[in-house]
Amino acid sequence: MGVTLPPCPVPIGAYLPVLVADGLLFTSGMLPLVDGQVAVTGAVGGERTVEEGTEAARLCAINAVAALAAHLGGVAELDRVARIVQVQGHILSAPGFEDQPQVLNGASEWLAAVFGEIGRHTRLALGAYALPKNATVELALIARVQPG
Amino acid sequence: MGVTLPPCPVPIGAYLPVLVADGLLFTSGMLPLVDGQVAVTGAVGGERTVEEGTEAARLCAINAVAALAAHLGGVAELDRVARIVQVQGHILSAPGFEDQPQVLNGASEWLAAVFGEIGRHTRLALGAYALPKNATVELALIARVQPG
Amino acid sequence: MGVTLPPCPVPIGAYLPVLVADGLLFTSGMLPLVDGQVAVTGAVGGERTVEEGTEAARLCAINAVAALAAHLGGVAELDRVARIVQVQGHILSAPGFEDQPQVLNGASEWLAAVFGEIGRHTRLALGAYALPKNATVELALIARVQPG
Repeated sequence: MGVTLPPCPVPIGAYLPVLVADGLLFTSGMLPLVDGQVAVTGAVGGERTVEEGTEAARLCAINAVAALAAHLGGVAELDRVARIVQVQGHILSAPGFEDQPQVLNGASEWLAAVFGEIGRHTRLALGAYALPKNATVELALIARVQPG
Repeated sequence: MGVTLPPCPVPIGAYLPVLVADGLLFTSGMLPLVDGQVAVTGAVGGERTVEEGTEAARLCAINAVAALAAHLGGVAELDRVARIVQVQGHILSAPGFEDQPQVLNGASEWLAAVFGEIGRHTRLALGAYALPKNATVELALIARVQPG
Repeated sequence: MGVTLPPCPVPIGAYLPVLVADGLLFTSGMLPLVDGQVAVTGAVGGERTVEEGTEAARLCAINAVAALAAHLGGVAELDRVARIVQVQGHILSAPGFEDQPQVLNGASEWLAAVFGEIGRHTRLALGAYALPKNATVELALIARVQPG
């Protein structure tokens, strides 16, 4: 996969990182954490370049998969993922910035590289006005998983 | 539960408050209604304090559960809720406000108090630039429910 | 239906237009495309009127149903749609604009006209600060579909 998965992100509120309901797995919104800290802050098209935003999106996806792996019982259980179904990506955007899809490709391309065909997904690429801790990206996943 | 549930919110457009599809229940976006009126308006970090935003989030959750109960056939049917799966919370935010998670805890902690362990959920806490009727929070739920 | 469905929108990133997981169909975020180009840009309440926004929402819904039809194998397969479950509509909004529900009715009323009772859905009407290609609306659908 080219990365070592970090530990499951610690929630910053009264919620769970991951839940499975009838074979559909939902993650909470993930931030671009490195070592438990938000590593990329500020709006793309302003303080942050598209390249920095793209890396933030990739970091969010890595944290989402780390949470997913932790929930399933470890990296070896990731083969229970039958499909990444949907990615919802919110990109903190400076006024006039309108290339959220390119930024979110940082997550989408990493997921496709890691999971192959089953990593290809539907998605919403949205511009955000404000995000927790001024993170550059917040991203949540829905996946289909098989029973363990 | 500490509150009397209000009646199911009346839609302000061409949609339904709640639907169930294959055991997953989806609510529409709920506003912080009291007596059918939006009770908390304006952006957190600007016109509204974090405490006022937190109360708005709690009111949204109360309206969501009211809609859910009405759909299932009454408060007594709430024991068919097997899990609150996901909360999507959009917090109207003033420039620079970045503590959406604390605001959304108003909903998350109320859901956990009402439903116990099955009330614990995944969530997205997002900052909004504009919301219907200038409401401080809009919130939607996904829940897993058992057949009646 | 009163419209000829366009071809399935071509993704503008590393994603799929539509996926089905266990009977739930998810579309990606759809833009108000006409002939493959974003036909309505700019914020409602600013550059765009409510009427123009409403038409943009309708165009997004048309593109979503076009994608759905293409995925299922053609317009004739649309009778496999058992329910439009949820619409998530993000309306590019000028400062102070708060009538996103009226704008999103452009999508909701068209879906109800096309699908009848099964076209009635839950929804989130949200104000957006920035959207891809400066589109006036981005909209995604969840539908329940029956096996082919």
